[in-house]
Amino acid sequence: MQKRKLEVCYTPALLPLYDIKNSIVVVIDIFRATSSICYGIENGALGIIPVASVEECISFEKEGYLLAAERDGKVVAGFDFGNSPFAYAEDKVNGKTIVLTTTNGTHAIDESKKTAYQVIIGSFLNLDAVCNYLKSQDKDVFLLCAGWKNKFNLEDTLFAGAVVNQLKADDYFLDDASIAADDLYQIAEDDLEAYTAKTSHSERLKKLGIEEDIKFCLNLNIVKSIPVLKDNKLVKM
Amino acid sequence: MQKRKLEVCYTPALLPLYDIKNSIVVVIDIFRATSSICYGIENGALGIIPVASVEECISFEKEGYLLAAERDGKVVAGFDFGNSPFAYAEDKVNGKTIVLTTTNGTHAIDESKKTAYQVIIGSFLNLDAVCNYLKSQDKDVFLLCAGWKNKFNLEDTLFAGAVVNQLKADDYFLDDASIAADDLYQIAEDDLEAYTAKTSHSERLKKLGIEEDIKFCLNLNIVKSIPVLKDNKLVKM
Repeated sequence: MQKRKLEVCYTPALLPLYDIKNSIVVVIDIFRATSSICYGIENGALGIIPVASVEECISFEKEGYLLAAERDGKVVAGFDFGNSPFAYAEDKVNGKTIVLTTTNGTHAIDESKKTAYQVIIGSFLNLDAVCNYLKSQDKDVFLLCAGWKNKFNLEDTLFAGAVVNQLKADDYFLDDASIAADDLYQIAEDDLEAYTAKTSHSERLKKLGIEEDIKFCLNLNIVKSIPVLKDNKLVKM
Repeated sequence: MQKRKLEVCYTPALLPLYDIKNSIVVVIDIFRATSSICYGIENGALGIIPVASVEECISFEKEGYLLAAERDGKVVAGFDFGNSPFAYAEDKVNGKTIVLTTTNGTHAIDESKKTAYQVIIGSFLNLDAVCNYLKSQDKDVFLLCAGWKNKFNLEDTLFAGAVVNQLKADDYFLDDASIAADDLYQIAEDDLEAYTAKTSHSERLKKLGIEEDIKFCLNLNIVKSIPVLKDNKLVKM
């Protein structure tokens, strides 16, 4: 294998600066979109269709799909559910197709699919599965943090760092953002919950009363599946 | 004083996401533009006029100013000098006005001056002076990393972290980017040179044969001056 690029992009707003046509893009929105997507696919969801707007989500109503919409951490009024991972349990999603729109995560998927070689979904829940897959492919790696409204956030960066930490022994060129993410992860890894508790985003989510969601999203490797984007639908790889 | 915001912006490309009208913006381009500006102002330069383009720089030729232009780490052909700090020594700049354009630093100044309350220049050379000034002002603080061609870079982030580290005991709201910068600085502070040696940017600068510049730019507090932007010219505060 040739030496591959390993890049971390802290927000979708910076995506136009990068050439990702030879890259596997890992979309990361730890609290909570990509954690829930991984959990839903593991639990038998046939597919999850990420859409950018609430309006687009509603347009799928007639198809008999489950409609999931989150904005600013809350379920949008009139929708089946939002992006709490507990809504993606087996009894709720097995055999179903879900249409999902979220504040940050679906925007990141939407932007990256235009030019990426491939788009997959990462979270702490499927960390090892994602890393093993990336190592096995002769492709550049692009870790795309969804951030918060296009700004940097810590929890997505920590997951990016966890991936860099596993991949860096292989033959990759690391950019500065990868080096920083890895160093931050090494500070946090012994107690992810304590570390993320100091972030501004975690504070906001706590106010929403979803501490249990946060705790769940920091579980390591309880999911073996990797959701991959195929024809605008996330399905089990 | 009211609780102030303390924000770090990793690249000028993200500037439009922030409201900085009540913020003192500290522009940071450690290797080498803002280090050289601080050193030049300390050494008696009457003023440094930052301009965005090489063409704009040339347009000042008739005024009898010193013309400095750097692109991709090199002095642009035909110019007096670029942004090596050694070109800003007392015997070269005392009593002179300089017109400067650089790959990253002057772009960051240009973008922030449009809306900021005030724009000042920071570097490790004047770290304590900058921190003491910020603490004394009843204003929000916005640490603007010039980055590398609008991407994140480590050395600018480390300086931002050094400022956060000094300010955080005071009453500020820290955003996630501030928390991360502070944590990275704490990893690096015992040996800034060793830490920055692992960055991609440092590698590039080494190829340009300017290791001495890099070493110089990591000196702490050899400069007491704070350059401040007044009428589009950086002068001693």
